[in-house]
Amino acid sequence: MGWQAEGPAGAAGAAVLRRAPLKRRDLRPDDLAVRVDYCGVCHTDLHAVRAREAGGAGGDPLPLVPGHEFTGVVTETGPEVAGFRVGDPVAVGNIVDSCGECAMCRAGQENFCHAFPTLTYGGTDRLDGTATLGAYSREYVVRERFAYVLPAGLDPAAAAPLLCAGITVWEPLHALGAGPGTRVAVAGLGGLGHLAVKLSVALGADTTVITRSRKKADDARRLGAQGVVVSTDPEQTAAARDRFDIVVDTISAPHDLGPYLRLVAMDGTLSHVGHLGPVTVETLDLLVGRKKLSSAGSGGSRATAAMLAFCAEHDVAADIELLPSARVNEALDRLARNDVRYRFVLDMSDLG
Amino acid sequence: MGWQAEGPAGAAGAAVLRRAPLKRRDLRPDDLAVRVDYCGVCHTDLHAVRAREAGGAGGDPLPLVPGHEFTGVVTETGPEVAGFRVGDPVAVGNIVDSCGECAMCRAGQENFCHAFPTLTYGGTDRLDGTATLGAYSREYVVRERFAYVLPAGLDPAAAAPLLCAGITVWEPLHALGAGPGTRVAVAGLGGLGHLAVKLSVALGADTTVITRSRKKADDARRLGAQGVVVSTDPEQTAAARDRFDIVVDTISAPHDLGPYLRLVAMDGTLSHVGHLGPVTVETLDLLVGRKKLSSAGSGGSRATAAMLAFCAEHDVAADIELLPSARVNEALDRLARNDVRYRFVLDMSDLG
Repeated sequence: MGWQAEGPAGAAGAAVLRRAPLKRRDLRPDDLAVRVDYCGVCHTDLHAVRAREAGGAGGDPLPLVPGHEFTGVVTETGPEVAGFRVGDPVAVGNIVDSCGECAMCRAGQENFCHAFPTLTYGGTDRLDGTATLGAYSREYVVRERFAYVLPAGLDPAAAAPLLCAGITVWEPLHALGAGPGTRVAVAGLGGLGHLAVKLSVALGADTTVITRSRKKADDARRLGAQGVVVSTDPEQTAAARDRFDIVVDTISAPHDLGPYLRLVAMDGTLSHVGHLGPVTVETLDLLVGRKKLSSAGSGGSRATAAMLAFCAEHDVAADIELLPSARVNEALDRLARNDVRYRFVLDMSDLG
Repeated sequence: MGWQAEGPAGAAGAAVLRRAPLKRRDLRPDDLAVRVDYCGVCHTDLHAVRAREAGGAGGDPLPLVPGHEFTGVVTETGPEVAGFRVGDPVAVGNIVDSCGECAMCRAGQENFCHAFPTLTYGGTDRLDGTATLGAYSREYVVRERFAYVLPAGLDPAAAAPLLCAGITVWEPLHALGAGPGTRVAVAGLGGLGHLAVKLSVALGADTTVITRSRKKADDARRLGAQGVVVSTDPEQTAAARDRFDIVVDTISAPHDLGPYLRLVAMDGTLSHVGHLGPVTVETLDLLVGRKKLSSAGSGGSRATAAMLAFCAEHDVAADIELLPSARVNEALDRLARNDVRYRFVLDMSDLG
């Protein structure tokens, strides 16, 4: 049972997820069956539902069930499963399979699989060719390799968003060396941004929030940030010029990267993680100060496991608003208005 | 005496540098007077002359004398000059002054001066407000801080292009750690590209040339490159995917960066140094493989001095075509057609 988008909507703008029975595959030898308890609501879900509503090319005939950051409990295991038993707490992110053979897969960076990883929803199963259906649902079947032991001590509802939003900001912070002695700025204080702040602070970096809204200054400090720069205040942005070794830009709408590049210190990096699509930068904004532009999105199995262990050790999880899954359409509508602090998580127990 | 552009041309397309007497300032206490012997011909010079020919906004009323990579001999020193004597060989690049007080200047990165450095031509002198005139000329007057001792053993004509083309590619190679065990690709084999190959090889990096032209393969190997990838051959580019820690893109025309980003290895960097202006990249091309985009252009006093010492030690200089300065317009026309291997240098002795 789950929440499914059913093709182009009649009424414009209305969210259209409807309760529907879902079929999951029979377990393969290395599969787990999971009872989904909690699933985060990601911007990607919103984009996917909106795209389906808009129709386009006659509408995609395949069913769409969003949801790719979830936690639950193992209910059944295939005969080759070694790392899980029935009853174990488990977490799954936005990738559920990959080729397993390319250099990236061998390095535990399956998110960069040369043959493209299988996405948790909207992907195509590598063996039977069916469309993958996401975790706005009570059940999921997943290869063991892409399931993570949910560490004890992490609240399963607040931990669900770690599996997409969390790993997406963990990757650049970790790869770029955030830690004691580094200065990190996080632009945008939403689902990704608030986790970037918590992770950066836990990593020991001097952490500043860049926000358009003065109202978020208190929130930023409550999350542990040492500094706040209000981006609409020219004096504050001028004072912040060339100041940060790492700027993690989590703003979800397309925007000019120039002002954020100018906050990056010499030899530092702007990591643009808030949305996909083309970005344009002025060469001079990179050149002056020898700055770099990077991006990130989700992570591989090795980094995901490391991040979960780190979060358990440092007590990092999302600030969530927990809703019964029947209120999923309300959650999507409010997410579209950025009306959430900071991540919706759906409680799937109302599905039975 | 020098070669000056004199405003919008009558005849379209004709290069318009004409011989003209130039006035240089009287020496300030920390100034050197230089007899210019050799000056390289940079793409920037071509752009500046073309822009002047095109007129625009009624034409810039200021005189334009190009030239910002030159070598010569000291002919006079101000009373505070400590590091040069009359008769010393000297080299100057594209920056002749800066604020001297900001963090970048204090770090010897005057090219990133917060108050913007004074360019060797087309800049504005910080003290008297006059326009700076470049080194397509027999004389130049420069602050000692921006003059470099030309190391013994470097041919003064072949060394001139090191001061702009050389330092522009040295900066990313050095900053990104090119050396033994790193894999460097150089895209484009022109003035910048051929120096990038020589420097990369001298630094000990495994060096590959990416070129559209099969004809340049022999040249690439003669310059020391271990490998060549012909970018118009899909098999070769497919085999080169994700293979280079550093790709230095020296292509001087605007172009799609996607194919070059795809050659970058995991956690590697594409350094885009061939032209200024906006560049657009697909976020996914950065995201997949956690790649970075950077840029570079010229360098500060510390890096420039280090590069010159390195070049002297490793016998690196440009492959040049030396022309009497009276043939400057021919050089610019041929540069516009990429008809040069690999840098024109003007011999100024015909100016007297």
